[in-house]
Amino acid sequence: MYRGLVESLAENAGRPILLCVLDGLGDLPIAELGGKTPLEAARTPNLDRLAIKAALGQHIPIEQGITPGSGPAHLALFGYDPVEYFVGRGILSALGIGFPVKAGDLAARANFCTLGADGTITDRRAGRIDTSRNSELTAKLSSGIRIPGFEVFVETEKEHRACVVIRGAGLTEEVSDTDPGHDGLPPLAPKALQPSGETAARVISEFLDQAGAILAGERPANGILLRGFACHRRFPTLLERFGLRSAAAAVYPMYRGVAALIGMDVRPCKDMEEEIRAASKAVSEGCSFVFLHYKPTDSSGEDGNWQAKTAAIESFDSALPAILECGFGVLCITGDHSTPCAMKLHSWHPVPVLLHGGPQRSGWSARFTEKEAAAGALGTFSAVHLMTLMLSSAGRLGKYGA
Amino acid sequence: MYRGLVESLAENAGRPILLCVLDGLGDLPIAELGGKTPLEAARTPNLDRLAIKAALGQHIPIEQGITPGSGPAHLALFGYDPVEYFVGRGILSALGIGFPVKAGDLAARANFCTLGADGTITDRRAGRIDTSRNSELTAKLSSGIRIPGFEVFVETEKEHRACVVIRGAGLTEEVSDTDPGHDGLPPLAPKALQPSGETAARVISEFLDQAGAILAGERPANGILLRGFACHRRFPTLLERFGLRSAAAAVYPMYRGVAALIGMDVRPCKDMEEEIRAASKAVSEGCSFVFLHYKPTDSSGEDGNWQAKTAAIESFDSALPAILECGFGVLCITGDHSTPCAMKLHSWHPVPVLLHGGPQRSGWSARFTEKEAAAGALGTFSAVHLMTLMLSSAGRLGKYGA
Repeated sequence: MYRGLVESLAENAGRPILLCVLDGLGDLPIAELGGKTPLEAARTPNLDRLAIKAALGQHIPIEQGITPGSGPAHLALFGYDPVEYFVGRGILSALGIGFPVKAGDLAARANFCTLGADGTITDRRAGRIDTSRNSELTAKLSSGIRIPGFEVFVETEKEHRACVVIRGAGLTEEVSDTDPGHDGLPPLAPKALQPSGETAARVISEFLDQAGAILAGERPANGILLRGFACHRRFPTLLERFGLRSAAAAVYPMYRGVAALIGMDVRPCKDMEEEIRAASKAVSEGCSFVFLHYKPTDSSGEDGNWQAKTAAIESFDSALPAILECGFGVLCITGDHSTPCAMKLHSWHPVPVLLHGGPQRSGWSARFTEKEAAAGALGTFSAVHLMTLMLSSAGRLGKYGA
Repeated sequence: MYRGLVESLAENAGRPILLCVLDGLGDLPIAELGGKTPLEAARTPNLDRLAIKAALGQHIPIEQGITPGSGPAHLALFGYDPVEYFVGRGILSALGIGFPVKAGDLAARANFCTLGADGTITDRRAGRIDTSRNSELTAKLSSGIRIPGFEVFVETEKEHRACVVIRGAGLTEEVSDTDPGHDGLPPLAPKALQPSGETAARVISEFLDQAGAILAGERPANGILLRGFACHRRFPTLLERFGLRSAAAAVYPMYRGVAALIGMDVRPCKDMEEEIRAASKAVSEGCSFVFLHYKPTDSSGEDGNWQAKTAAIESFDSALPAILECGFGVLCITGDHSTPCAMKLHSWHPVPVLLHGGPQRSGWSARFTEKEAAAGALGTFSAVHLMTLMLSSAGRLGKYGA
């Protein structure tokens, strides 16, 4: 995409936009559904009615053939080039537990592990200790570790998994993992991968020394392994880039975190009903862009449960009338990527898009399915262009050139 | 495409891939075929059966509206950006005759010509001397020319056409053509186009002086004209970029040459049957990527012979069952570009793609035609992304980001 072009045309006026992301929406033909996808098989009277009044298309999340993680896939939907605005694993881990990362923070994924008498790892997952035990250990580490000039946060994720965030001047992500990836080896020393990583390597060494001393008497979790070091940098916000006052209605911390990264006002919700109320409230408060995240389509895809995925789509469909009453001028319904039930994984396949509101080449499609979307008026396009289409549809972009 | 992204995700495992390139496959409606293209008119029961189980799409070889030569078109299919990895005319000429170019070699296309008494060109093609006469002259030049520090190869192409390759240190392609492009003018002196071209200009001058002396007594070919100077640089291989052990099964030297450039193990074949045996053998030897080149679709298109092109497609179709038995996990059938019979030339039109094997959005297309492909599940994409799609389909790419 042309750098800065959309920003230069953005106008601070227009109709409000709602982006509903049905996580992992796209799928593949399923034999048990007679070769239909869950989206084809689902009874979706409300989506069908909307499809005929909307323009359909399909987006490529990153690039043809590339399977995205949730972070890059969402950033692309928000108009952020997912390679330019890469979010490292450690930061995504911190976002996933709702940790409020700040620019300059260095984050890593952590595993509690078991070390043998000779210092080698006997279990990289410390017997998958339970989450409450994990919390006791992170509390000990958080209160016990002191590194002058730096703040250290050790946060529980789940079972043996935790997240470490270090805050202070001069940290970069140019540090090697301490997790060797296999049992039977000793933890690795953190090494600077560039001269700029030396401060971080020193601070992490210090962290590991102190953590080792604190955990030494514990069983079975007497060690900690770090990987995926990532530094957080400030991203330009949706307000700065596109003049959008934005809010996010999401149940899962990870998606709230990605939304927060680009300046969305995050409204934590416990279910879809609350999300719709939050979206409605946000637009009544003057928000011009709301992101509503719907997880069940992805979870069921990851489980390979096509009945559940079909039901999740039908459940979204039944919520659609309430969504349409929220007062948005433009409604876009899409996924962040495909999560085919047959693969139980994210995939690279194109993702159907429905764009309703504003002047659209409508009347082409009687249903919202992968196949109708592929033949839709919007064509096949890179996900990062979706924001431009939503902005234009909402009357929020001026003309390029005279 | 994002530089280095696919490489960073490539995994050294997965199913083997077969890429069948039906050269010049795409076409335009032909009145004599009732407005059908050769692909539409051909009886293709095997392709039809495969189409329903595959995903279709169409690729744009270089960029919308750009007509490619065979070199760039094939490089794009192999995942090499055809502008970044440009292969100059002289090098393509050398590859076309099967000359084993090395990094640093400087190659040029050559014409034997007739010079008048005043030194002006009276015939740029020396009366299209026959190929055997050409061979006598190239042998004389090859054995007669001595330039200290440099090796000189003069190779026969066909009729008046030859290829000159100079090997030695310090050569660049920054040298001007000596062929003025018209009769009635004298040959031009080679000039360095940049200071870095001075060694090459000096060596080429020396070559021309000696060649002039050797040819002086010949009739009608008493001169030689050089154009399209191109230096060969080493390309990263498919193994280095994507972890692919690769082989090429091709009848024509030009396509073998392009395959060799990117590290494919070239298996010369004399016909399609041998190509299929070579592909089968390659996969049984552990190759993870095989390129099979099929020329008749292009030759017939260049001849404007739609009957022959239709027959060539039907002939490929009848070989398809044997191809499917070779043991590949992913099979892609496409062209490198369109060669419409009505144009008798390469063209810029999109090229149909059929991708079979691995998780695909199949069941959409009952035939493999330009029109079905344009409406296919893969959408319209740049040829350089085809490799990514093949790698993903074969389970050879990891996820981007978490």
